Amino acid sequence: MSGAPETIYGLRAGLAVFEMRRDDIERIAFAREVHGELDALVRFASQRGLPCKEERSDALARLAQSQNHEGLCVVAKARKFIAQADLAELLVRRKGAAIALDRVRNPYNVGAIIRTAAFFGIDAMILGAPAPHPALAPDAVRVAEGGAEHVAISRTTDLADTLARLRKQNITIVGADGHAKTSALTYAFTRPVVLVVGHEREGISARIRPHLTDVVSISGSSTIESLNVAVATGILISKM
Amino acid sequence: MSGAPETIYGLRAGLAVFEMRRDDIERIAFAREVHGELDALVRFASQRGLPCKEERSDALARLAQSQNHEGLCVVAKARKFIAQADLAELLVRRKGAAIALDRVRNPYNVGAIIRTAAFFGIDAMILGAPAPHPALAPDAVRVAEGGAEHVAISRTTDLADTLARLRKQNITIVGADGHAKTSALTYAFTRPVVLVVGHEREGISARIRPHLTDVVSISGSSTIESLNVAVATGILISKM
Repeated sequence: MSGAPETIYGLRAGLAVFEMRRDDIERIAFAREVHGELDALVRFASQRGLPCKEERSDALARLAQSQNHEGLCVVAKARKFIAQADLAELLVRRKGAAIALDRVRNPYNVGAIIRTAAFFGIDAMILGAPAPHPALAPDAVRVAEGGAEHVAISRTTDLADTLARLRKQNITIVGADGHAKTSALTYAFTRPVVLVVGHEREGISARIRPHLTDVVSISGSSTIESLNVAVATGILISKM
Repeated sequence: MSGAPETIYGLRAGLAVFEMRRDDIERIAFAREVHGELDALVRFASQRGLPCKEERSDALARLAQSQNHEGLCVVAKARKFIAQADLAELLVRRKGAAIALDRVRNPYNVGAIIRTAAFFGIDAMILGAPAPHPALAPDAVRVAEGGAEHVAISRTTDLADTLARLRKQNITIVGADGHAKTSALTYAFTRPVVLVVGHEREGISARIRPHLTDVVSISGSSTIESLNVAVATGILISKM
């Protein structure tokens, strides 16, 4: 099943589509200011006969439906999400690592986490939210700076069920929770592993807790209650 | 020298002003939705005879000059920045740690870094930018979730000179740079220490490099060029 074409905007995000799935590209629009960074992309479009046009900033904003286009919009076939069975197989085969987001909603946080995951070679992201399927917000793709093309992404409307299935395949499920007694800074992650991080204010859902192998926290000075979820996840990923 | 009053907005940011410097508070405005979290603050205002009023969201937005007020605006005496001589003394006496920002401009990044610094008990922030003195953006204060009241903050229009002076007092100056050969993940930070992080795209300025004791990088999988500066700084702070 594939959906409507997707508009990816942002300079690194758009260039990553060209690098990783150029056959998906249908159309390109760019601002004069970034033309110098697009030589290979513009040449490719010309060879394929794809529409590829310099546009003013306001036209790019209309196409992106955002002011944050950074001078590049790439219209491409809808992104393919990885099926849950394939995700389990991938993690087991590679002794891999995935990050599961339990209702993390702010696209800046989601994007920063995907960027960090890609940077450290994390194999997959699992986006969890109640039905319908959680969207991968265009701003998250932009903030991920190309990371969304380098990490397999899976979506689930029932993260508790997804984690239960993964755990049955001997995948360790580790939750991040500020109140946990186990320190993340000395915890040894055993692969294959999924790290679960929760909603910005509410943390990990009660329904998900029974499926966690371990729960870890990042201990601080207690002047401030918590870390930003993208920063906390970055610290944890650097330990995986 | 003290300037015009400062409007702090954001729920945790405003409550931290009440916790840490309540005598500075001149006026409070809040939305009905957060009233339940403000009992002690409202009682304090009443005892002191300070203006403290429930307002509609649009009035709060006008006062904050932002939609991101989260239902609380606190007008307070201008924040006191720590003088450079006092900063050096503080770091030496406590065998402390500071984070210096070399032209980091995005208030979300600055705020997330201050939040992380406060969480881990970092002693001070050094905000560096060419003249005039770098402002601490109201959105950075909000995103810091109270952290801006828990960490001493210093400002300099000549960060190279500031770092040179600190280094003369035997304070280690460590720069973060994606191209450095020394891995931050195994590097042992020697206190007192200042960690310097640079501009989102350009990194650390050439003028600052001669003043660095060491330069460290966070090594990744190389699919993605770099981490978000707030995430990278969070990983480094967790190692200090």
